[in-house]
Amino acid sequence: MKRLLITGAAGGLGQVMRERLAPYAEILRLSDIAALGEAKANEELVQCDLADAAAVDKLVEGCDGILHLGGVSVEAPFSKILNGNILGMYNLYEAARAHGQPRILFASSNHTIGFYKQDEYIDVDAPVRPDGLYGVSKCFGEALAKLYFDKFGQETAIVRIGSCFETPRNHRMLSTWMSYDDFTALIDCVFRTPMLGCPTIWGVSENDSSWWDNSKARFLGWKPKDNAEKYRVELEKTVARPDPSSPLAIFMGGPFTQDPIHKDD
Amino acid sequence: MKRLLITGAAGGLGQVMRERLAPYAEILRLSDIAALGEAKANEELVQCDLADAAAVDKLVEGCDGILHLGGVSVEAPFSKILNGNILGMYNLYEAARAHGQPRILFASSNHTIGFYKQDEYIDVDAPVRPDGLYGVSKCFGEALAKLYFDKFGQETAIVRIGSCFETPRNHRMLSTWMSYDDFTALIDCVFRTPMLGCPTIWGVSENDSSWWDNSKARFLGWKPKDNAEKYRVELEKTVARPDPSSPLAIFMGGPFTQDPIHKDD
Amino acid sequence: MKRLLITGAAGGLGQVMRERLAPYAEILRLSDIAALGEAKANEELVQCDLADAAAVDKLVEGCDGILHLGGVSVEAPFSKILNGNILGMYNLYEAARAHGQPRILFASSNHTIGFYKQDEYIDVDAPVRPDGLYGVSKCFGEALAKLYFDKFGQETAIVRIGSCFETPRNHRMLSTWMSYDDFTALIDCVFRTPMLGCPTIWGVSENDSSWWDNSKARFLGWKPKDNAEKYRVELEKTVARPDPSSPLAIFMGGPFTQDPIHKDD
Amino acid sequence: MKRLLITGAAGGLGQVMRERLAPYAEILRLSDIAALGEAKANEELVQCDLADAAAVDKLVEGCDGILHLGGVSVEAPFSKILNGNILGMYNLYEAARAHGQPRILFASSNHTIGFYKQDEYIDVDAPVRPDGLYGVSKCFGEALAKLYFDKFGQETAIVRIGSCFETPRNHRMLSTWMSYDDFTALIDCVFRTPMLGCPTIWGVSENDSSWWDNSKARFLGWKPKDNAEKYRVELEKTVARPDPSSPLAIFMGGPFTQDPIHKDD
Amino acid sequence: MKRLLITGAAGGLGQVMRERLAPYAEILRLSDIAALGEAKANEELVQCDLADAAAVDKLVEGCDGILHLGGVSVEAPFSKILNGNILGMYNLYEAARAHGQPRILFASSNHTIGFYKQDEYIDVDAPVRPDGLYGVSKCFGEALAKLYFDKFGQETAIVRIGSCFETPRNHRMLSTWMSYDDFTALIDCVFRTPMLGCPTIWGVSENDSSWWDNSKARFLGWKPKDNAEKYRVELEKTVARPDPSSPLAIFMGGPFTQDPIHKDD
Amino acid sequence: MKRLLITGAAGGLGQVMRERLAPYAEILRLSDIAALGEAKANEELVQCDLADAAAVDKLVEGCDGILHLGGVSVEAPFSKILNGNILGMYNLYEAARAHGQPRILFASSNHTIGFYKQDEYIDVDAPVRPDGLYGVSKCFGEALAKLYFDKFGQETAIVRIGSCFETPRNHRMLSTWMSYDDFTALIDCVFRTPMLGCPTIWGVSENDSSWWDNSKARFLGWKPKDNAEKYRVELEKTVARPDPSSPLAIFMGGPFTQDPIHKDD
Repeated sequence: MKRLLITGAAGGLGQVMRERLAPYAEILRLSDIAALGEAKANEELVQCDLADAAAVDKLVEGCDGILHLGGVSVEAPFSKILNGNILGMYNLYEAARAHGQPRILFASSNHTIGFYKQDEYIDVDAPVRPDGLYGVSKCFGEALAKLYFDKFGQETAIVRIGSCFETPRNHRMLSTWMSYDDFTALIDCVFRTPMLGCPTIWGVSENDSSWWDNSKARFLGWKPKDNAEKYRVELEKTVARPDPSSPLAIFMGGPFTQDPIHKDD
Repeated sequence: MKRLLITGAAGGLGQVMRERLAPYAEILRLSDIAALGEAKANEELVQCDLADAAAVDKLVEGCDGILHLGGVSVEAPFSKILNGNILGMYNLYEAARAHGQPRILFASSNHTIGFYKQDEYIDVDAPVRPDGLYGVSKCFGEALAKLYFDKFGQETAIVRIGSCFETPRNHRMLSTWMSYDDFTALIDCVFRTPMLGCPTIWGVSENDSSWWDNSKARFLGWKPKDNAEKYRVELEKTVARPDPSSPLAIFMGGPFTQDPIHKDD
Repeated sequence: MKRLLITGAAGGLGQVMRERLAPYAEILRLSDIAALGEAKANEELVQCDLADAAAVDKLVEGCDGILHLGGVSVEAPFSKILNGNILGMYNLYEAARAHGQPRILFASSNHTIGFYKQDEYIDVDAPVRPDGLYGVSKCFGEALAKLYFDKFGQETAIVRIGSCFETPRNHRMLSTWMSYDDFTALIDCVFRTPMLGCPTIWGVSENDSSWWDNSKARFLGWKPKDNAEKYRVELEKTVARPDPSSPLAIFMGGPFTQDPIHKDD
Repeated sequence: MKRLLITGAAGGLGQVMRERLAPYAEILRLSDIAALGEAKANEELVQCDLADAAAVDKLVEGCDGILHLGGVSVEAPFSKILNGNILGMYNLYEAARAHGQPRILFASSNHTIGFYKQDEYIDVDAPVRPDGLYGVSKCFGEALAKLYFDKFGQETAIVRIGSCFETPRNHRMLSTWMSYDDFTALIDCVFRTPMLGCPTIWGVSENDSSWWDNSKARFLGWKPKDNAEKYRVELEKTVARPDPSSPLAIFMGGPFTQDPIHKDD
Repeated sequence: MKRLLITGAAGGLGQVMRERLAPYAEILRLSDIAALGEAKANEELVQCDLADAAAVDKLVEGCDGILHLGGVSVEAPFSKILNGNILGMYNLYEAARAHGQPRILFASSNHTIGFYKQDEYIDVDAPVRPDGLYGVSKCFGEALAKLYFDKFGQETAIVRIGSCFETPRNHRMLSTWMSYDDFTALIDCVFRTPMLGCPTIWGVSENDSSWWDNSKARFLGWKPKDNAEKYRVELEKTVARPDPSSPLAIFMGGPFTQDPIHKDD
Repeated sequence: MKRLLITGAAGGLGQVMRERLAPYAEILRLSDIAALGEAKANEELVQCDLADAAAVDKLVEGCDGILHLGGVSVEAPFSKILNGNILGMYNLYEAARAHGQPRILFASSNHTIGFYKQDEYIDVDAPVRPDGLYGVSKCFGEALAKLYFDKFGQETAIVRIGSCFETPRNHRMLSTWMSYDDFTALIDCVFRTPMLGCPTIWGVSENDSSWWDNSKARFLGWKPKDNAEKYRVELEKTVARPDPSSPLAIFMGGPFTQDPIHKDD
């Protein structure tokens, strides 16, 4: 790939991918609303508000692929979500449409289905059950991606990320964890596959405790290699098991299901 | 019912329902961004922009039920859809949450699934395939309604309206038409049923040519009585059959699938 | 048919069927643990405890068909259910096996699945969710009937009766009601069909408000003619709508879901 | 329609349709390997062996629609089936491809699935289970029709005819019967619908006793009006109920399941 | 865990688990109708008939978890099954309800579905098809467990054990075998998972030849490690392949499907 | 096995299997319409046209098992396909019926379903969508095999071979490749299993990129060991990725979907 755009590159996951994806493209164009530090040799840094259509148009121009991690990634007041995840998503897809429709990996979230119970096993076509305004905005994003595929042929990999951290941090993440290695491998699959279409994919490692059936994405050839299970013993030393009646133990979305509606200050 | 709020009451369908629902509540509170004419004896008229949170809060206060027809109902520039269907929907649900959670009938649309082909037969759990920004905004609305049900217990009937007119106007409507009588009966079912939950319902009459399986809404006891078929002969006298290769004949969403992305003037 | 055995003939439904089924067989053999009154011309009366294997063996001898309404039909102490519905069921099937395997209509119950919610739509293969010991005993009976079919070829119609009364008595029965006429017609279908097999059938009229999909029993040719809906207006005059948070409005099994475990006196 | 071709027009069903379809096209072109009698005013008669590619090519030229009833319609030696139903089918589709791809209604058969049991309820996507060489040839025909649709856009209505006679003739036909009126109405739907695609349709009336779910063909708007049930009483006077252990009572294909492999004389 | 109750501890599997589960609880309370030998340091031995409600009540008191292996585990006269598996199961659940609802692992059986064919692949929600009275009693037990979960919140892991032995003993067990290690690991998962609910789980190792889909239990994190396949070569040296027409080769339940109804002596 | 017949033994795959299956039977009877070279010690060579019924009858006599690779294996004029794959298949099954019904492994093909898209994941019961006359002939063969099973008990393993070569040759084969080792192991499973029935099996290795769900064949105990993925890097050095809009990248059948109808010279 010549130029890969990473939005949200100043965020937690964005910083990790900034390192790991360097070998995958001649140039990484990195964007965030926050500061991005100093550019390395193969990097282009663009501070940009996704709600600014003109800025986003310029941002996308000249890119061959987009890893869209940008926007709000936790529960927040609706005004913030509206700008970052709804208007921002629209701006990004309009910009892509204007500039040759580079393939997009859209970081959606398990919080689109957070109100399913943890003892269920669902595939990507289970009706959405978002667990907060953040989850609702990701439902919006998924619908928008599908529209642009059906109407314009824009290809998107909709990746419902579980919990992408160095290691699993609590019992719920024994099911939802995706390792950085596995995410990197998924990104590689998405951009290398001859035809992508517009699949929805659970972004999760090969954990023993699993809630999500990824069969429908088998054509991509993505085989996650990591397993949260190997961290269980260590984790149980420091993290208490949640009470069976706690949302942490009941719902896939865990603590998000308890979040109130956040209001602007 | 004591007070039923109808949003979008100045729109085409809103005007019809204003007449027909008069007997169903002591007071009809009617709202629109456009002028609503003169109030009848049992009517309260409130001109109101759904994007105005404070106004919507006041609008909802004191209502026992809401028929939410408001917002944009055709393809439009995203800024309009954002205000009317996304921000407006959020404002409405926040207002309902603040004021006792009156039951809501949310007018969603077949354009949430407009890219399915006309020779398919789908039920309400088929993954969304919106056919425009309007359709995407209705996917947002459906997801928001589900969130408020799962998190707060707010009951909503999500009604994916086909084509609600006096009579079917083209060949596609032989499948999508819902008569005013049938819609009125559905509204009655929604507000009378002891437990509503948050079902999704195809808003369509008992047409011979059908694309949509309403089995999952059978608990409501809604039995549409009308059938577009009785208008076929008449319709064929004046309306040409669409070409088999036309989106009018191919996709459930019909002409919406051809709409471009509308831009602000 | 030459001789039709009706067990539980002194019960509410048994008495009705005693009248209605007279034309269907030369002789009705009627049995109950309670007194059966006086025999009519074509009747044989046999007072019999289903827990008494020898008595049941004699009861079944010479019969060409069995309508098994006997046993306990409401929540009761387990000792009673054990005798009437578990041991009694076993005794009946052993007797049938000994005496030529007359076809059996087994009155099972919606209480085998009473913990499904009223806004679901299920077919007969949905996993059981009994709502009391009575419901559990009917699950036992259904399993036993299937065993005798798979192992010995004994044909049974497993009929999960909803609410079989003169008219619907409360809001729940607008969904669960089966008219006497419809049940009579079903019995006719069961005994006339060339091959019965061992189907499970929802015993319910053609009510507008429906929770149960009877498609898999379509081969029987049973088309219920009645509809609880025609009693709605009348019913609403005297019966209050259940509160949405009441088990009466939430669960298919209605009040049974609230029953405690009954203990022997 | 200008010119409708009916193949197999000298057969039982062909003769009936010759009468009934006269009003549907300016010209009926009638074809059979057998003699066709005298031509009426709007008829063109063509004696033709479907195994003769050149003859079939000429036969199809100039037609706007094809009702393909031709070929062998019962169990027969394989050489006959090979010529009439396999080579003949190929010749017909090649001719259609050469001459503008007129829409085709292909008379397939319930004998493609004859080994399902009569107490099952299946839809058109159930895997085939043919009950004889005839049924196998119809599986071939269905596969060929799908190929020509996927590869060339040739539209076909694959109609799995049950038993199309004046009235039902035995107990099995209480489930499989299709009236002439209903078949005529189906033909009308197939040729009038703007987009046909390549659906598979159960060719069966609205019989109370039903084995086949036609939901997936709902888009056609075909609503059969007749019901074999109204002939039950009369039928039972003259036709004995089949024994429960007879293939007539067990399998959907009835007597065909018992047919041996026919050998050439 | 402080005190784990194992019922049926004198049985074949009970003896094995007595050894293996010693590390999992401070105290093992072991119970059987048969003699249990001498108590080890951390053991409490209670000889107890499950049909004795008072004794069972005392047995359960003070336990934090129950491994319910007790009752009859093969085909037997109904009186025995009634006492051990039906009345005994009821007594156990009533005792658990009285004493804080300790989590239960209920040893159900593949004989609940023994009449499925060996070339099918089913999940835990396939309708039951028991292969004997023993299997029917396990259907009862499963229904009772579900009732206590839905009504009282009692958590149970319903484990349909295949064949739990040292090694597979015949060809059928190449599909049904569960190793002791895998069962031990499953027990661990069941008692450690924060929320258990009331899942049904196939108790079977990761055998190459498999009939049962355990996807719905993936949330438990149980990954069986053993595979009957490694015993195939050895097994084939001493055990003859069953005839294709033998129930041993046809039905999942194997020889149980051939068992007669056992009668009391 | 005493005598295993391999048809099509002079073909590419036939030659490989001739080597590999030598240890599996005392005698290999090898047949082809083409020359077969010289017979080895345990070989019987029979040059034979499958369209010749008498010759095929003799060919099958005395065999205990049949690996049916014979017939046309690519798109060809219909006359060739008719002889080799349709008449030839019928002749083979009639011969098997006459000679003790030896178990058959029928080499069907992924071209029965070649018009599914590469981003789908289907199981063997997905409706057929052949991609050419060759694929249609394999649909015929599958239907015939099912008929002979249902009617006569003839067991067949229907193996839909993907791409069976030394190594994968293009990007599509990263999904469709089956190694020789894996095919050999499958053949072994098919002939050793006590009951085979008539399953349909995807003939494909354990490739990371997979389109086909083989769960329903799990009972056979076949666990493919190879994975096309290990050839990806090497393959990408010499084979260009197909364009996303090319049938090679879109349809499971790849280039076959583009083949025209071949005509006789």
